[in-house]
Amino acid sequence: MAENTTTPTEQPPAAPAAAAPAAVAGDAAAPEGEAGPSKKALKKLQKEKEKAEAKAKRAAEHAANQAAAQAAAGNTEDLAKDNYGDATPQTKVDAERVNLRSVDDSLIGKPVKLRAWIQNSRMQGAKMAFVELREERDWAIQGVVAANPEGKPVSKQMVKWIGTVNIESFVLVEGTIQKPLEPVKSVRVSNYELHITKLYVVARGPEVLGMGLAVANRPVANFDDAAEEAEDPAVKEAREAVEAAAIDGAAIPSASMNTHLSNIAMHKRAPVQQAIADVRVAVRKLFAEYLDNQGFNQFEPPCLIGAASEGGSNVFGMPYFDKQAFLAQSPQFYKQMEIAGGRKRVYCIGPVFRAENSNTPRHMTEFTGLDLEMEIEESYHEVMLMLENVLLYIFRGIATRCAEQIALIRTIYPSEEFLLPEPGQEVRLTFAAGQALLRAEGPEEYRNVSDDEDMSTAQEKALGALIRAKYKTDFYILDKFPEGARPFYAIEDPENPKVTNAFDFFMRGQEVLSGGQRIHDPTTLEARIRKKDVDPASPGIREYVDVFRSAGCPPHGGGGIGLDRVVAWYLNLPSVHLASYYPRTPKRLTP
Amino acid sequence: MAENTTTPTEQPPAAPAAAAPAAVAGDAAAPEGEAGPSKKALKKLQKEKEKAEAKAKRAAEHAANQAAAQAAAGNTEDLAKDNYGDATPQTKVDAERVNLRSVDDSLIGKPVKLRAWIQNSRMQGAKMAFVELREERDWAIQGVVAANPEGKPVSKQMVKWIGTVNIESFVLVEGTIQKPLEPVKSVRVSNYELHITKLYVVARGPEVLGMGLAVANRPVANFDDAAEEAEDPAVKEAREAVEAAAIDGAAIPSASMNTHLSNIAMHKRAPVQQAIADVRVAVRKLFAEYLDNQGFNQFEPPCLIGAASEGGSNVFGMPYFDKQAFLAQSPQFYKQMEIAGGRKRVYCIGPVFRAENSNTPRHMTEFTGLDLEMEIEESYHEVMLMLENVLLYIFRGIATRCAEQIALIRTIYPSEEFLLPEPGQEVRLTFAAGQALLRAEGPEEYRNVSDDEDMSTAQEKALGALIRAKYKTDFYILDKFPEGARPFYAIEDPENPKVTNAFDFFMRGQEVLSGGQRIHDPTTLEARIRKKDVDPASPGIREYVDVFRSAGCPPHGGGGIGLDRVVAWYLNLPSVHLASYYPRTPKRLTP
Repeated sequence: MAENTTTPTEQPPAAPAAAAPAAVAGDAAAPEGEAGPSKKALKKLQKEKEKAEAKAKRAAEHAANQAAAQAAAGNTEDLAKDNYGDATPQTKVDAERVNLRSVDDSLIGKPVKLRAWIQNSRMQGAKMAFVELREERDWAIQGVVAANPEGKPVSKQMVKWIGTVNIESFVLVEGTIQKPLEPVKSVRVSNYELHITKLYVVARGPEVLGMGLAVANRPVANFDDAAEEAEDPAVKEAREAVEAAAIDGAAIPSASMNTHLSNIAMHKRAPVQQAIADVRVAVRKLFAEYLDNQGFNQFEPPCLIGAASEGGSNVFGMPYFDKQAFLAQSPQFYKQMEIAGGRKRVYCIGPVFRAENSNTPRHMTEFTGLDLEMEIEESYHEVMLMLENVLLYIFRGIATRCAEQIALIRTIYPSEEFLLPEPGQEVRLTFAAGQALLRAEGPEEYRNVSDDEDMSTAQEKALGALIRAKYKTDFYILDKFPEGARPFYAIEDPENPKVTNAFDFFMRGQEVLSGGQRIHDPTTLEARIRKKDVDPASPGIREYVDVFRSAGCPPHGGGGIGLDRVVAWYLNLPSVHLASYYPRTPKRLTP
Repeated sequence: MAENTTTPTEQPPAAPAAAAPAAVAGDAAAPEGEAGPSKKALKKLQKEKEKAEAKAKRAAEHAANQAAAQAAAGNTEDLAKDNYGDATPQTKVDAERVNLRSVDDSLIGKPVKLRAWIQNSRMQGAKMAFVELREERDWAIQGVVAANPEGKPVSKQMVKWIGTVNIESFVLVEGTIQKPLEPVKSVRVSNYELHITKLYVVARGPEVLGMGLAVANRPVANFDDAAEEAEDPAVKEAREAVEAAAIDGAAIPSASMNTHLSNIAMHKRAPVQQAIADVRVAVRKLFAEYLDNQGFNQFEPPCLIGAASEGGSNVFGMPYFDKQAFLAQSPQFYKQMEIAGGRKRVYCIGPVFRAENSNTPRHMTEFTGLDLEMEIEESYHEVMLMLENVLLYIFRGIATRCAEQIALIRTIYPSEEFLLPEPGQEVRLTFAAGQALLRAEGPEEYRNVSDDEDMSTAQEKALGALIRAKYKTDFYILDKFPEGARPFYAIEDPENPKVTNAFDFFMRGQEVLSGGQRIHDPTTLEARIRKKDVDPASPGIREYVDVFRSAGCPPHGGGGIGLDRVVAWYLNLPSVHLASYYPRTPKRLTP
């Protein structure tokens, strides 16, 4: 029915309510890592805001004109009037329902039904409009609606009405799959187009979006909650107007993480965010899948606990009826209770909480832990190798299962490939060997680092660079951490009590896992608790030691992985906040 | 090497440190559902406590004598002295490692290695001892240790020492698999026994267990935290001594839930608790498995939220830096944000929190929600059927995958089979039809129940009984709940606004799921919020409505399932606390 349309391939369609100021340039947004825009940038923003407002006003007038034209025309002779409009509970379309992922030549010429967001639209003359219809993530097709000389199934009024539907409205569409003359470069389903015969608005998008999809799909410019809080409201408004007005094809500004989170629906609609979410889910699943196959039992530790037993200062406390409750900082004690309870190998995946006032791209107050604990038969290296294997399984798994998503993410957040060791060439150094490497080959300031003190974040990164250069891997283990760097439940090496049977794992020079053997003998445990200047009779600690006293507990060990960090460091994202669904920071509890 | 031993099959072995008072009877424990033991029972308990103490004292003296004998003998000529004792980091056993689950005739006569708990032991004369070795859950084998005339590999001293090792010690054993003359009825691996040649204690059990395994594996007698709190300390001590002294074969008393939880390692070692944990994990996995196959995306909602948006009275609040935070009562708003964010079909599995001061076997302050949300294409019944299908998949899945565990659980907590409808015969009544059934065929007091008011728990149970009798199913749906019984986000039936497009699912007459279609249009949502006397501008609510205003959100619906309740009601357990790993109640935050 629309064979007479030509397919525009030279230019991507533009959004009517968001025509772009030509001068919207990348420098309107703060470069990554900086706290905010400069004074000059602010002035520019203000000017661009005015331009954007003028454009928006013109677009609104245009829409009003069209509506009036439609109303006037509709009163006389709109033969297509049942083929468009706002959907009601009675609205039905009978054509075959398709997914854009599965469109192929077999559908050419067939009427199909689609539910989708209008992600862009533009009029071409008075008789034709183009609408980009996005079904999910980046799966969009170009829809063409062209008035028929007979006035049905598509009338001029219908074309006009469709051309003014707000973008990011959710619509129900009937149309016929056709081949375009040339591929439609602006959408993923570029080898087909949909010649629309019906279009109903199921859920109307707003007149002006708080953040457009194109901006949402740009790299986040700024993760600093505090800087954002201090931003001048007028400047903020100007910046947001520019961000909202951005379109494909022009240089698109980046928005801050706060703008993203304040526009949560658009943030989540960005293909890059959906791809990150897919990777995250895959990491969770691969973790569980591997351990299920190794005979592990999943379990669920509580979040609410009765004592701040792992260190009082970083724990959230709260009134709990006539008591005080705390939020668990880790499932450590509960994993150990499962082992004492005879479950042999356990894992859990769930939220953990840290009341640290750390406003960095590495920290959140709530994050997801991937934890395991297992009986040790001969050596704690059984635990270390289990953890190494599960992480290698995860890394190799996402590289295969999420290849498409990872490629998409790299178009927004470029990253070098995450280097893995060849099987059999895994890098496992002692902490002391790592320090020796740092002293011998690291930067000048690390010439005297000690084997007895924990590393700083900067030291870790320097060592990561040395190891990448030397061993061609971004993933490695440091074993035998110094006694002083480990909590009271870590077991000392029986052959050298200056170190512990405990290790950290690193990704791109950043710690992503801590683990090791725990003390299972209550007498030894109590002695080490005292050595750490903790009172074994203090609340939480006493009950913990009693578990080992109450029945023989086998030797065991385990480790905890930060899911958010695994995802963020693997993808080399600028912040763990991007890997989280709803990041929680000291300044942010919403959305 | 131990062919000269005879295998005792007539009597199960008795634990040396816990010889049973003959009169320990089931009535020492409170019958299910009562608040605590009667005065008479208390006196009896006191008497039994004294008996138990006397027995324990005799057992301790016996152990001391044996130790002295061993020491004396050892000084002269113990040729087996390297074959037993406390394990050190250097202790190694080279024989092949076996799992008791996989022992078969091919292993007869072969030396094997086992790590296990001694769950019972007894001396037979001075030259032989029997030790029950439990590897996991109820997988135990009888170990036989008999002194060899040459004094090696097993000496008299070794037999004596092994006979006095505390039960629930974790040991490393070497032995040879042999066929007993008759099956050993007291253990699961009854067709084999292990003739021990080496035994090392890896982790010593206590002199006296707080709760023995046999008691731990009995039905829990009492779930009332409050009654427990009020218990006289002397009575409590007496009761606990009796509970601790119980052995297999005698009438074994039940312990209260508080005793179980105060002895968490032994609680978890009880085969019935491990079987329940297995069923729980299976339910989680089946839920995820089904939805993964239906194109759902898993996601993780936050626990920490900025506003008590779903009703202030039942929410835990806490200081959060310079703000106030709350713990999420459900992932409702976040599931909807995922849909608004274009994720189409989502599910989550995680903790939710209720600050209700309800001390019942149905309530906990922290429990696990299985939640899903999905776009609706034509009708909210798509959601209802998805939820019905996932639950049927779970029920059928655990019946197959956990048949062994369910059978084990029924030996402790008897239950009638959970009746499921034949495919195509699923029971889906409207709320009004359910009320009509209750009026017509239910108990006298329900002759006048209204179609406009929510049901009480008692009404639900009465209706469940009627439906079981009429339709032969323990699983059914009530659809179209009255408007007044549903929260502000529930959509009204466009054809009858007195009811909602919302439903509950029931198991054995108890609600286990609430779900329905949500309002996706911001104007309608705001109107219904006002109708429910909530201020649309209040914290949390305003941001919630804004999500739907910020971008077109497709029609959607979903439901939330209480994992603990599904497990507990399916197995007909007396309390959801039994289905939880670490139950949290208003009175209990430990272990």
